[in-house]
Amino acid sequence: MKIVIDAMGGDHAPKAVVEGAIEAVKSIDQLEVILVGDEAKIKEHLSDQTNITIIHTTTVITGDDEPVRAVRRKKDASMVLMANEVKEGRADACISAGNTGALMSAGLFQVGRIKGIERPALSPTLPTTDQRGFLLLDVGANMDAKPKHLVQYAIMGSIYSEKVREIKKPRVGLLNVGTENGKGNELTKQAFSLLEEAPIHFIGNVESRDLLEGVADVVVTDGFSGNIALKTVEGTALTMFSMLKKPLMSSLKTKLAASVIKSDLKQLKNQLDYAEHGGAGLFGLAAPVIKAHGSSNGRAIYSAIKQACYMVENDVTKTIEETVALMKDGEEE
Amino acid sequence: MKIVIDAMGGDHAPKAVVEGAIEAVKSIDQLEVILVGDEAKIKEHLSDQTNITIIHTTTVITGDDEPVRAVRRKKDASMVLMANEVKEGRADACISAGNTGALMSAGLFQVGRIKGIERPALSPTLPTTDQRGFLLLDVGANMDAKPKHLVQYAIMGSIYSEKVREIKKPRVGLLNVGTENGKGNELTKQAFSLLEEAPIHFIGNVESRDLLEGVADVVVTDGFSGNIALKTVEGTALTMFSMLKKPLMSSLKTKLAASVIKSDLKQLKNQLDYAEHGGAGLFGLAAPVIKAHGSSNGRAIYSAIKQACYMVENDVTKTIEETVALMKDGEEE
Repeated sequence: MKIVIDAMGGDHAPKAVVEGAIEAVKSIDQLEVILVGDEAKIKEHLSDQTNITIIHTTTVITGDDEPVRAVRRKKDASMVLMANEVKEGRADACISAGNTGALMSAGLFQVGRIKGIERPALSPTLPTTDQRGFLLLDVGANMDAKPKHLVQYAIMGSIYSEKVREIKKPRVGLLNVGTENGKGNELTKQAFSLLEEAPIHFIGNVESRDLLEGVADVVVTDGFSGNIALKTVEGTALTMFSMLKKPLMSSLKTKLAASVIKSDLKQLKNQLDYAEHGGAGLFGLAAPVIKAHGSSNGRAIYSAIKQACYMVENDVTKTIEETVALMKDGEEE
Repeated sequence: MKIVIDAMGGDHAPKAVVEGAIEAVKSIDQLEVILVGDEAKIKEHLSDQTNITIIHTTTVITGDDEPVRAVRRKKDASMVLMANEVKEGRADACISAGNTGALMSAGLFQVGRIKGIERPALSPTLPTTDQRGFLLLDVGANMDAKPKHLVQYAIMGSIYSEKVREIKKPRVGLLNVGTENGKGNELTKQAFSLLEEAPIHFIGNVESRDLLEGVADVVVTDGFSGNIALKTVEGTALTMFSMLKKPLMSSLKTKLAASVIKSDLKQLKNQLDYAEHGGAGLFGLAAPVIKAHGSSNGRAIYSAIKQACYMVENDVTKTIEETVALMKDGEEE
């Protein structure tokens, strides 16, 4: 199996990417990793090049670049060359921790969509208190979703959860403003009826208040609302951690208390952390494309590589294509 | 000034409502409170009836009632009789901690809209780390908002923030998936241009990640996304508190530490608490209608009464009407 990675994407590139790649080739059988980026900078961290090859380029798409324009103009950027390896069939999947919008464009233009899928969905796995985690999609690939897009998200999310996360009969919820039927806006009302007919285990509406308690395994929503939900979780958690830090450090007495519960707090933070949950899949593309978190460390990159490998090994892409084709046949009958 | 309150609404009714009312008439000059509900049950808690009158009814709209139908059919429900006092001009404003949807219906059908306002907006004040708080609207009165509705929300929120919260030149942000211009869905893209022209201090797009840090004084969004954002803040905060509780209580050592930081944690919780921030105004109605939180205690009801009094005293409703009328004139020229 060959996984190609944008070595220059993310806050800690290329160090974190190289570290993750080294760990991955050591622990995953028959894995070959292709790193795309500045060869000299990559080699600074590359202690062992077994099963790792480099495609050299010094052009990089930054966070400030306008995504679509950057992908079109910077033809030799590390991310674009990465997507090209998948397009040309020289790699089975690709990973970048760089500009999310640019990765979506590169995925769409170069890797292309699965036949029958109208819109890809950006799909991170968020943590829950019961440690299972849940898949939230879409969080921003498609801003103005139609009801049928949400159904496709539900199918893609279910297949991924079954095949990669090994969840039997994953519970699919529709993000909504209340749990009762008939709640919501025009989009969710129409999507609700379609989801009831879809070949998934639909459990109805779920509220954002209950997401972290593990109310569903897969939660579908439009890219705008999903992005709002995701960033609200992040923002609230970060704000609470910083609010907690202040009183804890405010006096000697609490400083002592703080040192005692420090390890517990760290564990709590890890539970809300991305590193162990891999990256966000860009589901609906003709090969696995993974967006790793911008602040990924080596461990997070390693998780993303494992995730990509699982997706390839378990034929997630092909299964999605076949399921969508079956649904189309059903509609035409 | 006369404020009418649904004494039977909320988890702790009528006790909390009566307590809040007693505190309010004691501390606010020339305030008269009308309590609507079961007279016997109200009187159990009513130690002093100075400036408090009761309208007796035993019919109640519950949380399980379908809002529109309940308001239409239960004509003698405490909430409906409450709204009727405002409609008939016998009270200046009304407050309920009961069924939110029913209150919106009662407000719309009985109190009516301000001339020129197309859609009322449910507008809670959320806490921020700098203690200023911010107004989020709409969080669910209007599920499928149009760009011009968001502009009206911005105007109503600005006027309220200036008049009641005494914020000079309140900063108005548009909730979006990124801070750059041109981001978002069709709704936010169109609303952005209109907000730039509106008679407010528009600071552009804001991300939900930054809300609790006080990035804006007024944040406008459609009712669906606003509801998702609000409930995600609530859910994440509650989940984190419960996650924190577990490790703290897991051993004797941490139990000791916990007792030390307990008061700090409580303070933190208060900051994220509704009680001190009053209720959510239903802006755009012909008189102040306040939705107090369902779990309101006496203190929260008192805050909501103060809030209603400020709105009446400072002519918030009239100012909104005049501002919207001026904008209409501008459009027609």
